[in-house]
Amino acid sequence: MDVFEAIESRRAIKQFDAEHRMTDAEIEQLMDAAMLSPTAFNIQHWRFVLVKDLELRKKIREAAWDQAQVTDASLLIVVCANVSAWEEPQRYWANAPQEVQDFLLPKIDAYYRDRERVQFDEVMRSCGIAAQTIMLAAKAMGYDTCPMDGFDFDEVGKLIELPHDHVIAMFVAVGKGTMAPWPRPGQLARDEVVIENTFANR
Amino acid sequence: MDVFEAIESRRAIKQFDAEHRMTDAEIEQLMDAAMLSPTAFNIQHWRFVLVKDLELRKKIREAAWDQAQVTDASLLIVVCANVSAWEEPQRYWANAPQEVQDFLLPKIDAYYRDRERVQFDEVMRSCGIAAQTIMLAAKAMGYDTCPMDGFDFDEVGKLIELPHDHVIAMFVAVGKGTMAPWPRPGQLARDEVVIENTFANR
Repeated sequence: MDVFEAIESRRAIKQFDAEHRMTDAEIEQLMDAAMLSPTAFNIQHWRFVLVKDLELRKKIREAAWDQAQVTDASLLIVVCANVSAWEEPQRYWANAPQEVQDFLLPKIDAYYRDRERVQFDEVMRSCGIAAQTIMLAAKAMGYDTCPMDGFDFDEVGKLIELPHDHVIAMFVAVGKGTMAPWPRPGQLARDEVVIENTFANR
Repeated sequence: MDVFEAIESRRAIKQFDAEHRMTDAEIEQLMDAAMLSPTAFNIQHWRFVLVKDLELRKKIREAAWDQAQVTDASLLIVVCANVSAWEEPQRYWANAPQEVQDFLLPKIDAYYRDRERVQFDEVMRSCGIAAQTIMLAAKAMGYDTCPMDGFDFDEVGKLIELPHDHVIAMFVAVGKGTMAPWPRPGQLARDEVVIENTFANR
């Protein structure tokens, strides 16, 4: 599917065919695409939890305002991240020339160390980027998606046994949509969202 | 261009043809695609600052570790967000049926009010999603991109006259790449990044 067709036809879908199953090959294709998403300094800190167990899905649905897509989607991805991933930068540059490593590794440490807000902002940005990769790739594979952050993050963290130095960013539900989306409900004009040079020009 | 081809061929490029100009039509096409990115509750809080003024670009480059792509890219997009956008939810649901508005608008208020961390996490997630839309759309249009967060956020905020209730999430530089990217420098294995059901299974 063409990139622009995917961008234009992707909508958040909340009604899925609960009987449809994705194949393992489809799931691997989707995850391999997600893993090509960029991260700052290549730290690849996203972690994708694929909730396949139906009992676990039901518990997560209870923690997610009882939204049906949590159990009805073919795949529920809890997009998480390892906030400490920057502490092992050599792993992400192992194949780079030594002089590149010598230059970059100290920069990575300096960028993140003792800067908690920077670490957490980075996590959310990276997970957003990866989530859109997943949503567009899924669309190209004939699937619909629903990005979600309407749930009890702490409760879901307990259910998926989230490590203490990881956070949850959002869910992406993936499946065969069974209803057309609402018309877009109130889109802003381009000249409100796109600004030239500085906000003084708005 | 096919979605998977765009995902697979997109790499962060730092060397751009400084002479190349994007047309206004290309920039509009790119921004219209970005604006189709999903946001929670459709709040569309991203704001895309297109830095076209070369003198301003030079100042931003000084605040960005002197990275050449800031001035050499055909387009420098400062991806920002209005953190207060949730306060006017009726704007984003103006065309929805009244009963939908009656249901959703109080939920939006309850989700964000007095929850600063939730507001800021949302901003970064949404901007990440939109940034990947831009990067994949640009690739499909024959452009390369570089996502960036290596800059002095406060200084750039001053330069673009960022309103007090807005934040900067990242840059996306867009242009005609002049050098092939490095080979990917150290990619994690799928089984480290993709987890089944809970982290206890890792």
